[in-house]
Amino acid sequence: MSKSEPEKGTQSPLCVVNHREHQCISKRAASMRRGLAGLGKKQHALNPYNKETNREGIVGLAIAENTLTHDVIAKKLSMIQSTFRLSVEILKNADAAGSKQFRETLAAFLTKYGGAVKPLNPDNLIIVNGGGSAVSMLSTVLCDPGDAFLIPTPFYSGIEPDCGRLAQVELVHADLTSQSGIGIQPFQLTVNTLEEGLLKAKKQGFIVRGIFLINPNNPLGDVYSKDLVMDCLIFAKSHKLHVIMDEIYMLSVFKEDVHFTSVMALEHLPDPDRTHMIWGFSKDFCMSGLRCACIYSWNDQVASSLKTIAEFHSVPTYLQSLLNEMILDKEWVTQIYIKLNHQRLKEFHSYMCKGLKDIGIKILEKPSGLFVWADFRQFINPSTFEGEFNLYNEFLDNKVYLLPGEGLFCCEPGWFRIIFSVSKDEIDQALERIATVINKRRSKEYIQSAISEISSINPKT
Amino acid sequence: MSKSEPEKGTQSPLCVVNHREHQCISKRAASMRRGLAGLGKKQHALNPYNKETNREGIVGLAIAENTLTHDVIAKKLSMIQSTFRLSVEILKNADAAGSKQFRETLAAFLTKYGGAVKPLNPDNLIIVNGGGSAVSMLSTVLCDPGDAFLIPTPFYSGIEPDCGRLAQVELVHADLTSQSGIGIQPFQLTVNTLEEGLLKAKKQGFIVRGIFLINPNNPLGDVYSKDLVMDCLIFAKSHKLHVIMDEIYMLSVFKEDVHFTSVMALEHLPDPDRTHMIWGFSKDFCMSGLRCACIYSWNDQVASSLKTIAEFHSVPTYLQSLLNEMILDKEWVTQIYIKLNHQRLKEFHSYMCKGLKDIGIKILEKPSGLFVWADFRQFINPSTFEGEFNLYNEFLDNKVYLLPGEGLFCCEPGWFRIIFSVSKDEIDQALERIATVINKRRSKEYIQSAISEISSINPKT
Repeated sequence: MSKSEPEKGTQSPLCVVNHREHQCISKRAASMRRGLAGLGKKQHALNPYNKETNREGIVGLAIAENTLTHDVIAKKLSMIQSTFRLSVEILKNADAAGSKQFRETLAAFLTKYGGAVKPLNPDNLIIVNGGGSAVSMLSTVLCDPGDAFLIPTPFYSGIEPDCGRLAQVELVHADLTSQSGIGIQPFQLTVNTLEEGLLKAKKQGFIVRGIFLINPNNPLGDVYSKDLVMDCLIFAKSHKLHVIMDEIYMLSVFKEDVHFTSVMALEHLPDPDRTHMIWGFSKDFCMSGLRCACIYSWNDQVASSLKTIAEFHSVPTYLQSLLNEMILDKEWVTQIYIKLNHQRLKEFHSYMCKGLKDIGIKILEKPSGLFVWADFRQFINPSTFEGEFNLYNEFLDNKVYLLPGEGLFCCEPGWFRIIFSVSKDEIDQALERIATVINKRRSKEYIQSAISEISSINPKT
Repeated sequence: MSKSEPEKGTQSPLCVVNHREHQCISKRAASMRRGLAGLGKKQHALNPYNKETNREGIVGLAIAENTLTHDVIAKKLSMIQSTFRLSVEILKNADAAGSKQFRETLAAFLTKYGGAVKPLNPDNLIIVNGGGSAVSMLSTVLCDPGDAFLIPTPFYSGIEPDCGRLAQVELVHADLTSQSGIGIQPFQLTVNTLEEGLLKAKKQGFIVRGIFLINPNNPLGDVYSKDLVMDCLIFAKSHKLHVIMDEIYMLSVFKEDVHFTSVMALEHLPDPDRTHMIWGFSKDFCMSGLRCACIYSWNDQVASSLKTIAEFHSVPTYLQSLLNEMILDKEWVTQIYIKLNHQRLKEFHSYMCKGLKDIGIKILEKPSGLFVWADFRQFINPSTFEGEFNLYNEFLDNKVYLLPGEGLFCCEPGWFRIIFSVSKDEIDQALERIATVINKRRSKEYIQSAISEISSINPKT
């Protein structure tokens, strides 16, 4: 999603006052909590690392933002801007779901880059101000308050407030773990896991309306196989569940030999009336600040319902026009931008992976996204979320801000998501600081294991 | 509000299917109806009048959009754009409630043009993508689903879906009528009317959380006196009610001798914790398509709660930067733009008023807004909303699209809101078409009254 990481877990001061009569805000507003990432986010915002001006500041590798091709995008938009004729049309009342022109261009763009078997219909495409809004709108239209979506964990945790804050929709978890088996990789999504999650959710009394899938996955970096995508859709159909396929990282698959299968590319959608897709410019085009994403629904009724609330999440005509120009330049998109972005993502991913391995951190190497899923379990003591939180805080104290697995609803303590789409200097600084913490823990561990060894020899000491 | 008029009254096809199992959308989505204005809006969209290319098309005077200074704004934005350095900062993840810089500039702008007694605090200002979003956000934060705001009628009816669609907040009416009395003008707001409305709402079982006031008023064009604003705020305080002061037409008061009192300009706010203000660029700066408005709340807790949902309604950093530049040029704003806008609004208002009077239509002449409130009661037969709807349809058949009072929740049939901020050619065309309908009705009335006269002489015929 194109936004800062949400905050979870910590109690907001808003929640202290419980009685409506003592406060000026609604009960629902009072229940909107902030969270775990909040602590680091605030500290980082107050004291961000800067190579020139603040070398003692905190290096932030927690927010999934791609800065690697900022230069290319800024240059391209500057060029468009310089020849852009600002007509009065841009000032006029517009279609809240997006201008006809931009919807047509974007539908063609998605058809091409999503490998759609059939051209997308611009009438079923809704332009919205960011991925978070897209999730919120689909939640509103597909669910009533209290209904739920099933989602595999770990997942980009912003989806929770995106479903919950306005739409009041719950998320129920299908937990993936590090356990592997025959033909099963650690944290691999299977239909079996979805089935177990659904059963559990129903037992808990949830009315589950759909499944939320992130492909390519955040935080795992997984790219689902075509078979897996189909299996999930068939499973969903068998339970009359909607599927929201969040493909916000669609163009951030950086390994040449990995084939990404968009839901648009399937020859046959098992249940088109219950299939919906999200994409945006924030990640794949490095423009979190420009707030432009979209929803595609194969269901006309859903598309039409989304349009009745589109005004609340609309994108300025002006920005639509700029982006329209940008993606109309197919040669630039294909030959220059995407190539360069993949090349840089691949390079920085390798650089980060090598650095972490050199420190002795295991990682799950994956072919997409802006992050690596790193295994710090051997450095967590106790092996609990409390232990994970202590390590998170020790990183923060050592001026590096990473997102712990608990902040991504991972069911297993000891995992962290580390963003690599920053400068090499920032990666170097972060690795050095991570190494300091880890080495301290290693030596502590060494001392402790030495002590416990001595204790076992001389139990009375 | 910076958007097209909502639709009300007619049943959406979505509502036909009532059983959840037969449809793919939620109950709340199915209940989102479209409305009365819809019919004309669709017809107008399919066949809009154009001086050069479609002289037989429908002249639309129903959507409150100011086109009079489009030229000046487009020129100014073009100039800003031509010197604007698009830095990578603009691409980065940003504060969802608005960049610090823009919030500071806009706070200073509102302080100056709202005549604030104390500089507004940028931390209490939230930037949002349009007035509709501002209303929705305040509804969410101040009310729980089912709670209500009290609002004087007639009112800009978009506020109903703005409160209802996402936030599920009701509007209860305090009806203003054409009846005048000692010191009371037709449709004049009084605290008495609010009191009666509140009592009625409570009797009906509504939990009323606040009062929604539009000043300058849409559709009446009224500008409230300082005393009236204060009286309303004191009344609200006595009942512990929030006040949302919608000042979206703040800079569209075009009569020199009329003084507008912003809620910001009051030396002493009776209940600052329950006072909130909305303003935007759509009306006063002729940019409905650019989607930028703001909320100012004097209550820190409310401001902080608004920020937790700001992401869903955020404005691109890029657009914030352009508008920031625009309003930083105070000389242009004060000496060129506002002067010219007032001059043109005044001129076109007079032109429309004269044209309507020449046809024999009475109007309530007011000093602000983009519309006149016109009295067609003598041409309505029967004197009911059905009669009003027939006249609305007859106008549509004659290729002029006006908004009837029922579409603005007026309690009295026979009133229409007519937009004058269009081209003089469009005004001329509309007046001619209105005159055709009215003259037909006059002659019918003449014939009917002649017939009934004859009948009374020869009762057997």
